[in-house]
Amino acid sequence: MQFNYAKRATKNEPSAIKELLRLGADPEVISFGGGYPDPDLFPLDKLSEVYQSVITEKGRDALQYAPTEGLPALRQQIIKRMKRTGVACTMDEVMVISGGQQGLDLVAKIFINPGDVVIVESPTFLGALLSFKSYEPTYVGVPMEDDGMSIEALEVALKANPKTKFIYTIPEFHNPTGVTMSLEKRKALLALAKQYNVLVLEDSPYREIRYEGEHIPSIKSMDDEGRVIHLGSFSKILCPGLRLGWVNAHPEVIAKISSFKLAADTQNSTLNMYAVNEFLETHDIDAHIDTLKNTYKRKKDIMLKAMAETFPEEVKYTIPEGGLFSWVTLPERMNAVDLMHKTLAEAKVAYVPGFSFFPEEDQHHHFRLNFSYMSDDKVAYGIAAIGNIIKKNL
Amino acid sequence: MQFNYAKRATKNEPSAIKELLRLGADPEVISFGGGYPDPDLFPLDKLSEVYQSVITEKGRDALQYAPTEGLPALRQQIIKRMKRTGVACTMDEVMVISGGQQGLDLVAKIFINPGDVVIVESPTFLGALLSFKSYEPTYVGVPMEDDGMSIEALEVALKANPKTKFIYTIPEFHNPTGVTMSLEKRKALLALAKQYNVLVLEDSPYREIRYEGEHIPSIKSMDDEGRVIHLGSFSKILCPGLRLGWVNAHPEVIAKISSFKLAADTQNSTLNMYAVNEFLETHDIDAHIDTLKNTYKRKKDIMLKAMAETFPEEVKYTIPEGGLFSWVTLPERMNAVDLMHKTLAEAKVAYVPGFSFFPEEDQHHHFRLNFSYMSDDKVAYGIAAIGNIIKKNL
Repeated sequence: MQFNYAKRATKNEPSAIKELLRLGADPEVISFGGGYPDPDLFPLDKLSEVYQSVITEKGRDALQYAPTEGLPALRQQIIKRMKRTGVACTMDEVMVISGGQQGLDLVAKIFINPGDVVIVESPTFLGALLSFKSYEPTYVGVPMEDDGMSIEALEVALKANPKTKFIYTIPEFHNPTGVTMSLEKRKALLALAKQYNVLVLEDSPYREIRYEGEHIPSIKSMDDEGRVIHLGSFSKILCPGLRLGWVNAHPEVIAKISSFKLAADTQNSTLNMYAVNEFLETHDIDAHIDTLKNTYKRKKDIMLKAMAETFPEEVKYTIPEGGLFSWVTLPERMNAVDLMHKTLAEAKVAYVPGFSFFPEEDQHHHFRLNFSYMSDDKVAYGIAAIGNIIKKNL
Repeated sequence: MQFNYAKRATKNEPSAIKELLRLGADPEVISFGGGYPDPDLFPLDKLSEVYQSVITEKGRDALQYAPTEGLPALRQQIIKRMKRTGVACTMDEVMVISGGQQGLDLVAKIFINPGDVVIVESPTFLGALLSFKSYEPTYVGVPMEDDGMSIEALEVALKANPKTKFIYTIPEFHNPTGVTMSLEKRKALLALAKQYNVLVLEDSPYREIRYEGEHIPSIKSMDDEGRVIHLGSFSKILCPGLRLGWVNAHPEVIAKISSFKLAADTQNSTLNMYAVNEFLETHDIDAHIDTLKNTYKRKKDIMLKAMAETFPEEVKYTIPEGGLFSWVTLPERMNAVDLMHKTLAEAKVAYVPGFSFFPEEDQHHHFRLNFSYMSDDKVAYGIAAIGNIIKKNL
């Protein structure tokens, strides 16, 4: 039969990227595609213990319904982690969500009317573009530079678009480029947001995965009026399979998000909230994050070394101080999708072609490389294979 | 600061019902309020075992990202359960969602434009009203009768509202009334849906919790063209704290819902999907459901006996064949909110006043009683207390 969809659903077509991601999902392929953590680093024994203890000792509550805003004890733990990023916040400013992705969806849901403008980094996280798109905004992209989005271009965008609702940014170890926004730019961004009276949506899933350089204060830590909505996540510092993240925002915004979360999915998994809270109470997550950082730094260094050795000079790439990604820019005449068909056919190696990360006009000569998921050997081998295939096709 | 919300978010105000639910949440209160399962029935030992085995043996996958449509093995289990309700379906017709509630949200999201009409039973599930409302439909209510919604009124509503997108129904042990739709009405509803070319959203979280009478075929089982979208849930047959439910629908609708779920929250908790699949593979969930049914039937009988003994004749109530609720109708001159303030003050007993379950004009002389959560003693004591307070206030 013929289905008569809502307008928002006629626009949400399966994208070319899905097919490409599927190609990369073959277990025989060396994939630099997803943003997957290394499963060797999941603390299986500790989590097994924690689940056993929570179910056995607190199961009557841990398997029951829970408040939409999340388990109070877990929200307290999140407040503690926020404090370490320089943000003093209270219970009514923090709630648990189903991964950072749900924060993107719910923030867009409460703020975007069709035709409103969202200013995003160009390129930006594909999942954010997908998520906001459900609410039919117009995207305005601001080009990325080595120290974060161009502040000049941001001001032009704000001046030209009075219907702007918020600026979306991933300040640390940006997805897909790996770039970190400088302190100066963070200050300038917040000042412009104030001047043009728009909100800032700060997405920080990678913040704690820093290998080099000093932590830079979050934009939220400079916010004295509730203009910044900050998203955090346990996906990268613990594991993604529990779907736990958080929002830190003005109490009024938290209340709104909570109303819409209630309508959208009632609440997060009670059991997973109990388990992560128990893990944080009884184990040293910072020691665990140190282990992650050691491993990921090693893989990043292997990747960068292989790129330095095998990528021709015309090919540029970013050197991330943290996070999971480097961003490769080919000469403009080359096409990253065509190249990936060759790397797949000739060496069973995949990545994510960059076009889908662009909010407006696609650019076809970039791709994103993830270094957290594959083993050391495969990182070295796969990058060399890409380098050699680029050379042959320059 | 002043927040400039989207239109949909200016309508979503915290309702009076929230305050009333808060009053009932005091642990000293005997609450017939929520739709909570009895936590004594959670299979703690089995779940503890299952989580331990899944984390230890499959943790590398079970804590990682998973497909948006859900774990394939769990979808196969869901197909098996659907088969028992008379529905033969394939993998592309089934996906996992975050409880039935997320199905309500995503179905509304892909079908409702502002101003479209949704026909609902009157009264109906409060959570569905909240969920659909995010997409700004107009509600048309169809009165409930003892054997399900009035088919005459449904036809009038369909004729009068050409912008109707779907009919929402809870055919078994309806929330809040406890009523079950007869086979004849199911057939008539589907025939009308065909005639007026609208969809049917069949919400069946309680279907397997039947104490008396014969199972009636689901509306989905009579659907030969993909007109019916069926929602199921593990919340009532296993536990709500894992947030797992499913949609069974036409493959094209599943693909659309999946795109929007990807944008909304990426996927369900991988670990919970692995654990429930393992539970279904290694334990007899039907034996577990039999235990639930025995306990809930006993509590239901205690409640009905206490109502028969203590409620005055002018007060009517439904006799459910399954599920978790009975629906009480006071004489029209009485107000269920006022009465609840008295039952709270005089006996620390709470329920859900009925007004919030009505899609259009509120009716103030009903309330919903849940019998699954409280102990036998408290059910008997609490109902007698309500009965006595009604008598004093008749």
